[in-house]
Amino acid sequence: MILAKVIGHVVATQKCQELSGSNLLMVTALGDDLNPLKDRTYVAVDSVGAGINDIVLVEEYLALNKDKYKAMSVVAIVEKVYRDGRE
Amino acid sequence: MILAKVIGHVVATQKCQELSGSNLLMVTALGDDLNPLKDRTYVAVDSVGAGINDIVLVEEYLALNKDKYKAMSVVAIVEKVYRDGRE
Amino acid sequence: MILAKVIGHVVATQKCQELSGSNLLMVTALGDDLNPLKDRTYVAVDSVGAGINDIVLVEEYLALNKDKYKAMSVVAIVEKVYRDGRE
Amino acid sequence: MILAKVIGHVVATQKCQELSGSNLLMVTALGDDLNPLKDRTYVAVDSVGAGINDIVLVEEYLALNKDKYKAMSVVAIVEKVYRDGRE
Amino acid sequence: MILAKVIGHVVATQKCQELSGSNLLMVTALGDDLNPLKDRTYVAVDSVGAGINDIVLVEEYLALNKDKYKAMSVVAIVEKVYRDGRE
Repeated sequence: MILAKVIGHVVATQKCQELSGSNLLMVTALGDDLNPLKDRTYVAVDSVGAGINDIVLVEEYLALNKDKYKAMSVVAIVEKVYRDGRE
Repeated sequence: MILAKVIGHVVATQKCQELSGSNLLMVTALGDDLNPLKDRTYVAVDSVGAGINDIVLVEEYLALNKDKYKAMSVVAIVEKVYRDGRE
Repeated sequence: MILAKVIGHVVATQKCQELSGSNLLMVTALGDDLNPLKDRTYVAVDSVGAGINDIVLVEEYLALNKDKYKAMSVVAIVEKVYRDGRE
Repeated sequence: MILAKVIGHVVATQKCQELSGSNLLMVTALGDDLNPLKDRTYVAVDSVGAGINDIVLVEEYLALNKDKYKAMSVVAIVEKVYRDGRE
Repeated sequence: MILAKVIGHVVATQKCQELSGSNLLMVTALGDDLNPLKDRTYVAVDSVGAGINDIVLVEEYLALNKDKYKAMSVVAIVEKVYRDGRE
């Protein structure tokens, strides 16, 4: 998973069945300084109710379970990041 | 998923069974300014009826469901991109 | 999938069971000018009878179906590439 | 898998069901000199009881088994790295 | 798959069940000149009895079959590389 920031969303009426009803968030991967990286923006399906400017965990690769196909997803909202013992 | 632009298509008569009947679109990943990135062009199976110059969502990684194998696919046509509240 | 050019092959007697009998092609990813990119050469299992210098589609990620494991594969031989309406 | 160093962890109360109860470690990929690489930090589920500053193996891609979905995971704690015969 | 060179191995006592009993090889991806690339070293499970300095094929992405989970693996030992007809 990667740390990312929600920076917007996209509207898409014509989409494949698996995405129907999904909230499509634009998320940008964060670098070591927790600032957005250049040209590293993805579109991910929201599964946790994330909002604009939230720091989230994004499963970068195809998530899959036995029951249904899942596209790249926001899988958690991050409240705190602890690095090397510092907050 | 990534935001990409449909820039063309390829013709391939000799292909594996799973691709038979598929429309093979050339799509180029878009950068933060929504312009195509250099050397980031892929070929994706169309599943939504996308046309040339459409902005689309492409599932970058192998999509898989229980019933059939799916290659990299165009999974949605994007109508609007909202970033930081701006359209 | 990516556009790539067949540039050679490798010989490997000692290989895992899943690759037994496979033709192992060296393929180099192509850039926007359809020229091979530096240090982007992969080895892919041929599934369509591709030959040296053919332009092919390569499934970059693990292909998987319900019946058997498949490694990175050449999945189509490209006859024509149409970009922005031009051939 | 990649060699990585545990550099911290994240706290996330709102997360998808599959991550519930997971310890979410921040891990940074290591370069040839075994020093952390710039902007190559991931968040991985701990499955081996790794702690801060441990050198670990991280499965970079989605791990999947028949029984449950697994996100990017720390799959081993590395005790020694032998390169070219040297320790 | 990628061409890589076995450059060492790692020792890890504490590891997830799926890796138990595995030989964990350090492999470095090779560039167009068949020399190791900078910061492209991975750890892969040996499945073919590869040794130090062997040129091998590594499945870069998660290999999966119906019976068991497999991590990134060395899947073949390369004896000869033929490029553009030359050996």
